[in-house]
Parts: sequence; C-alpha cells; structure tokens
Amino acid sequence: MASVDVPVALLGYGTVGAAVNRLLVESADDIERATGHRLRVVRALVRNTDKQRSFAPDPGVLTTDFAAIRDDPSIAVVAEVMGGVEPTGDYLLELLRAGRPVVSANKQLVARRGAELFAAAHEAGVQLRFEASVCAAIPVIKVLRESLVVTNVHRVTGIVNGTTNFMLTRMEAGASYEDALAEAQRLGYAEADPTDDVSGADAAAKMAILATVAFGTRVPIERVAYEGIESIAPEHVRAAADLDAVVRLIGSATLVDGAVDVRVGPAFVDRHHPLAGIEGPINAVMLQGDAIREITLEGPGAGGGETASAVVADMVSVIGTTGTGFLQNDPCWRSLDTLPPGELRSCWYLGIEVADRPGVLAQIALRLANHGVSIARLTQRVLNGHAALDMVTHEARQGDLDSALDEIEALEEALGRPTVYRVVTQRNGG
Amino acid sequence: MASVDVPVALLGYGTVGAAVNRLLVESADDIERATGHRLRVVRALVRNTDKQRSFAPDPGVLTTDFAAIRDDPSIAVVAEVMGGVEPTGDYLLELLRAGRPVVSANKQLVARRGAELFAAAHEAGVQLRFEASVCAAIPVIKVLRESLVVTNVHRVTGIVNGTTNFMLTRMEAGASYEDALAEAQRLGYAEADPTDDVSGADAAAKMAILATVAFGTRVPIERVAYEGIESIAPEHVRAAADLDAVVRLIGSATLVDGAVDVRVGPAFVDRHHPLAGIEGPINAVMLQGDAIREITLEGPGAGGGETASAVVADMVSVIGTTGTGFLQNDPCWRSLDTLPPGELRSCWYLGIEVADRPGVLAQIALRLANHGVSIARLTQRVLNGHAALDMVTHEARQGDLDSALDEIEALEEALGRPTVYRVVTQRNGG
Repeated sequence: MASVDVPVALLGYGTVGAAVNRLLVESADDIERATGHRLRVVRALVRNTDKQRSFAPDPGVLTTDFAAIRDDPSIAVVAEVMGGVEPTGDYLLELLRAGRPVVSANKQLVARRGAELFAAAHEAGVQLRFEASVCAAIPVIKVLRESLVVTNVHRVTGIVNGTTNFMLTRMEAGASYEDALAEAQRLGYAEADPTDDVSGADAAAKMAILATVAFGTRVPIERVAYEGIESIAPEHVRAAADLDAVVRLIGSATLVDGAVDVRVGPAFVDRHHPLAGIEGPINAVMLQGDAIREITLEGPGAGGGETASAVVADMVSVIGTTGTGFLQNDPCWRSLDTLPPGELRSCWYLGIEVADRPGVLAQIALRLANHGVSIARLTQRVLNGHAALDMVTHEARQGDLDSALDEIEALEEALGRPTVYRVVTQRNGG
Repeated sequence: MASVDVPVALLGYGTVGAAVNRLLVESADDIERATGHRLRVVRALVRNTDKQRSFAPDPGVLTTDFAAIRDDPSIAVVAEVMGGVEPTGDYLLELLRAGRPVVSANKQLVARRGAELFAAAHEAGVQLRFEASVCAAIPVIKVLRESLVVTNVHRVTGIVNGTTNFMLTRMEAGASYEDALAEAQRLGYAEADPTDDVSGADAAAKMAILATVAFGTRVPIERVAYEGIESIAPEHVRAAADLDAVVRLIGSATLVDGAVDVRVGPAFVDRHHPLAGIEGPINAVMLQGDAIREITLEGPGAGGGETASAVVADMVSVIGTTGTGFLQNDPCWRSLDTLPPGELRSCWYLGIEVADRPGVLAQIALRLANHGVSIARLTQRVLNGHAALDMVTHEARQGDLDSALDEIEALEEALGRPTVYRVVTQRNGG
C-alpha cells in the first residue's frame, strides 16, 4: 500500500487531544487500511508549550500560534478538542473560511453557533463534522446524515444525559434523589455542581444539535424547552412502576406538519419501549423515519476514550470523502417554524391530589372531557387523608390538557397544581 | 447547486429494485443536498423486459443484456437487488473487475462468496458495500467500517433473526412453540417452510458477515456453528424467567487471543443486558471494542422499504467517497484461526434431571468441580417424581463443561443428557 503521511492539526492538547494523538499513532495501520493514508499530527494549539503532557507529541508540534494552523494549506483536517465557546468559535470560523475541514467535539459550541459554522463550511466547500459533540462514540450524527439520507426522519427521542439516567435508575431501585446524586458524584458521573445535568440543560444542548441535523433546520438552543429531574420524588417513580413504566429524562424532537417541537423533561416510559431498558450512565437515541420505521443507538454517552474515538472516526471520514462534494451542504437548508407548545399531542400522566369529597372525581372527569382529554387508565387511592388520582390520558393536545388542568386546579377541592409528565409508549415514540 | 446526473444501474427490478428506484426519484433533492449529485437509474437488468412493473422505470431502462451495464464506464455504481448466489456472484465479480463499484443486498452471496468479491473490489480499486445484506436498514456495517475504525472490536453479540425473536417473545407470554410459529406465519414474519429461520441458518449467514467485517478475517459460513430454537420448550422459557433472564437466539462472534469463535444458538440473556429488552420481530447488534466499551444498534431487521433505504444509503456513500481511496481495502486483511469450540469461556445454564436418590447432588457437584466448573446459582425441585436441577455456572471453558457433563450423563441416576444454554450477562456480553 502506498503510504502517504497526511498532516492534521489539533486545537487543544488536553486529555482528549492526547487521546486523539495516541489513537492516530497506535491505530495508524487501521486508518491506513481504511483510507490509504497515515494521519500525522503536525501542529497542536496550546496556551503553554512547556507544560508536561501525557502522550507528548513530537518536538515542535505544540504551538501557541493559531495562524500557523490556519495558514498551512497542507493540513487536511483540524480537530477541535479545546472546548469553550470563545475564542473557539472564532477559530473554527477562520479555519473553515481558510478552507480547512474541521472536526469538533464541542457540544456547547455546535449548539450555540452551529448555524453560523455550517454556513461557513458550506460557503468554503469543506466539511464540518461533530459526532463527538453528541453522545460521544454513539454514531448518531453519522447515521442521521449518511445512513438515513432518504428516510425523512420525523422524530428523535433520546436519553442523552447519562448522569440523570444513572440517578433515575438508582431511584428505581429505592434510593432517594439525594442519595442517587451523592452516589453519582462519588462515582464521577456527576460534577460537584450538578446543575447542568440535573436541570436538563446538557440534554437540551444535545437535542438542539440532533433536531438541527435530523430536520435540516436551525434549532437554536434557546428554543428547546427543558425541565430537569430535581422535582422527581420516589412517589413518581412508584407511580410509574404501578403503570408498568419507568421515569426517564427524555429529549424529544418532533416534526409535525412542517413545524418543530424540541423539549427535554421527565417522562413515563412504557416498559416495552426500547428506551425503557436503558439503565445506568448510558445514552440511547431512537430515530423514527418513513422508510426505516425506527433505529435505536445505545451506548456510553461520555468518556475520554469514547470521545477521542469519535473524533478520529470523523477525521477518517473527512479524509475518505475529501474532494467529492459529500456533506458540504449546509445541514440547515430550510427554515421551519417552532410548533406552539400547546399543539404537541402526546399521552400524559396526571397526578392529582384533591380533598376526598363526594363528586370530586366527576368534577375532574368532566373538566377533562370538556377539553377533549380522554382517560385511558385511572387509579384512585387515599393519601394522607386525601384522594390521590393517577391517570394516563389517551393522546391529547398539550393546550387542551393545560386548559383542563387550569380548571381542575381552580376547584375548591384541589390541593395544588396536578403533576404532569409525558408518557412515551411504543406507538407514539414520545 | 450545480446539479449533475450521475448514471447508476440495478441488477434486478423486483420489489426491492422498484423501491430503490422510487427512493432515488422521490428523494433526489435529499441526495443532491448530501452529494451534490442526482442519481438516475439508466439500466436495470431483468429477465423479461415486457413484464408489468410497480414504479416502472423510464422506457429503455430495462434490459436483458448484462454487458450493457458491465461495459458502460459512465455508470457510477451498480446496486444488486436480484438475489440468488448464481449467476449473481459471477455478475458481481465481472462488474468489480470492470471497475464498477457495487452495492449488494444479498446476504447469502456475501456470506458465501464475500472473500472472493472483497478481493476483486480491492484489486480493481473500487468499493463493494453490503449494508442491506445484514439487518436491513440498521447501519451496522457502516458503523463497524467507518465509526469503529480505531476501536479494535473484539465481540459482536446480536439478535439477527426477527422471526425467531418474535416467536420467543410470544413463548415468553405463554404461547407454545407451535402457536408462536403459526402466529409468525399468519403475520408474515415466517415463511411456510420456516426452516431457514428456526434452524439458526439465517442468523449464521449474518454472523459470518458481521464477524468477517468486525475482525478483518474471512469467516466462511461453514465455520459458524449454529443451533436453532426448535428444541426450546415452555419449561426453558420458565427456567430463564426464574433466573431473571429471557431466552433469545443469540449470534456471537468473539476474538480471543487472535482466534475467532462464531456461533448461533439459544441463550439465557440476563434481564439487565441491552439485548434482553428486544421484543418482537426486531434485530439488535451489540459491538464491543477497546475505546468505545459498547454500542448497540436496534431496529427492524427486514422489510422492503428498510432494505431499499439501506441500498440507497450505500449508493450515496459510494458516490460520496469515490476517488478518495476510502474503503477500498480488502475487509479480510488478515487470516485468523478458528478458536477450538471447547476453548470458549462463558457462563452456562445447565438443566439436569436425575433420579431423586441420596447423594446425587454431591455426585454432580463433584464432577463439575473436578473439571473446574463452579456453580453460581442452583435451584432443585421435584419434577415428575425426579429431581430437576437448574444451575448457572461461573465462567468456564466449554471443553471443561462438556467433560463434566459426559461424566454426569454416565451416572446411574442420570435421565438423559443435561440441557445446556449459554448465559449472556452484562459483563461477559455473550
């Protein structure tokens, strides 16, 4: 095999950068078999070239001079593994405009400035790949862009945050929220400040990227409504179990009549749904489209080795497609409206607590019926001397449900706002 | 966008061929966005050009002249959707040798003549893609060859036959084998003669392809040991449930110390394993490798639309990588030995029936211990006046287990050969 060294560069040389370089070196034969080429890191942008590095690069590779990468036309692809939104975003724009293909592992950057970066790549006729920015080594971006190119994907439903999935799995086994969080922190799944994970913000960024790629329209992160798991209590987990379901933090992106709904929140997932079996710090994404029905991809959604593997796979894919025009389109090729949240149809779980007086169930049922919300399952029990109702509705518009709940909350017998979660079944997918 | 028509050809124009042409026409904009080109079917090889066709191609496209396709250098890719091993295999060899990239949906052909076809493609410097030959639209071949290029995949564990998975799911719900088969036939999941599915032969062909691609070595279909589900009875399904497991037809390909074991057979799958939740006529494949830990892909493993979607995705990928040298390597780049079956290590389920006499359990335990097989779980119950033992072992060599079972079968108290199934847990993966 005629082996040719292909120069590549890195922005950043921390844990992931070093792991990328190690994979390029140690798997050079695998890469050469796949591409016909050996990829060699010739420049890596860092702030301090004197710092000790694990898997140190060759002498002279570390540089503090960004222009040395941007202005070197021999560099076939640049992998961004430095993180942060600024100045990283501006670096990537400059690289793309200079004609350098870019691979990025940067979720926040792609979620916040993706549209701008995609446009620059398209304009310059080079690729921007970003597999590692969502769910690490699970190849959901590649599958969406390459395998499902003719399938009109209309729904993406995912468990895209491993920390909260671990916590919910522990709560299913009986742990309290606090214990589950402490365990996640002890095991290194959650940070000391877990807000980004437990609030749903991390999942929202990933869903913004997935929706953008799946539907070909810009979905800014600000348009993803999200809710976290902070309010999940053991009684919700038990209520789900009673309904043969599990509580999961579900991200969903849905295309309805040319409009897009993207949201993240706790949901009751039917035990027979592919996402119900996802336990521990694992991610899974279900893609539903016309020709394929559904494909679900599952695996660890984080980890240095996994991230580096995805970055290298993207670099290999860039080398394997350079010059063909492949994937140089702007992924945001159309502009779709946001579905008004009230328009989303779903099955819903309702947890309603009311004073235990004659006729109260009739009152509630009437309010729901008046707004066209029909009940599929209902159990009533006594809780602290009150009546506690657990209901699952048939598919209903969120707006109709909200109107009914407003009226129910206003009933004299009502004890606070009813609890509402989406119910994800095998049929509705989200 | 400068739109250029790229001529492509089909071998065969039956259900899948017509569906491929329809997708190329109806998704032409999607394909142009991804590749910069519009793909147009200019020739389709059929036996009878006068037959009525669903989604009929343009006049003059149907031809009985194979040479008109082979010898037309303008044809950028040929999709083989005619099926059969002969003359299809020879056609593909001629096409590859003539420099035509080929996409095939033909499981039997790739499993039986893959090595020869791969070598011809490599020799001619063109691609041979075959995603649709295994699990339809589930992109397991693409993920193995492109996303996991640097991960040293060492184990592939799959449910790769939807018919038997449907039947086992029904048996879990209480159906007999005969009722489950009749229902599968009524729903169109099983053929009138279901032998190919229930014997494990279909799964064996798919595992031969997956092992070849995953490990880079030729795994002829003859080297895949397979066993079907014909002997599965309700008591096995119950025994699995008692052990918090489900019975599934599992294909596994394992790389151990440079040797390969590929087999198909019923196994007890622990309820927490990603494959345990796969219900109904669905396929799922778990890939385990160094950097990625594991990735599982799941979806319908059959269907005309799904198959056509995978064929078109492969055609798009060929167009998107042509001229770069990508994936023109021979997937069989090394020659690995077959692991002697006795060398495979696994956990095992043993169902042993013996006359209920004092000391018999000690006899059995002694025979297992003498061969280094240690027991992880054991329940004993009375069945038709005999003692029935259900055991799960710790990981043990199959050869050691077989030796112990030979001795146990030879005991005076033994009532026939013990039943043995592999136990697939989250840790051992197979």
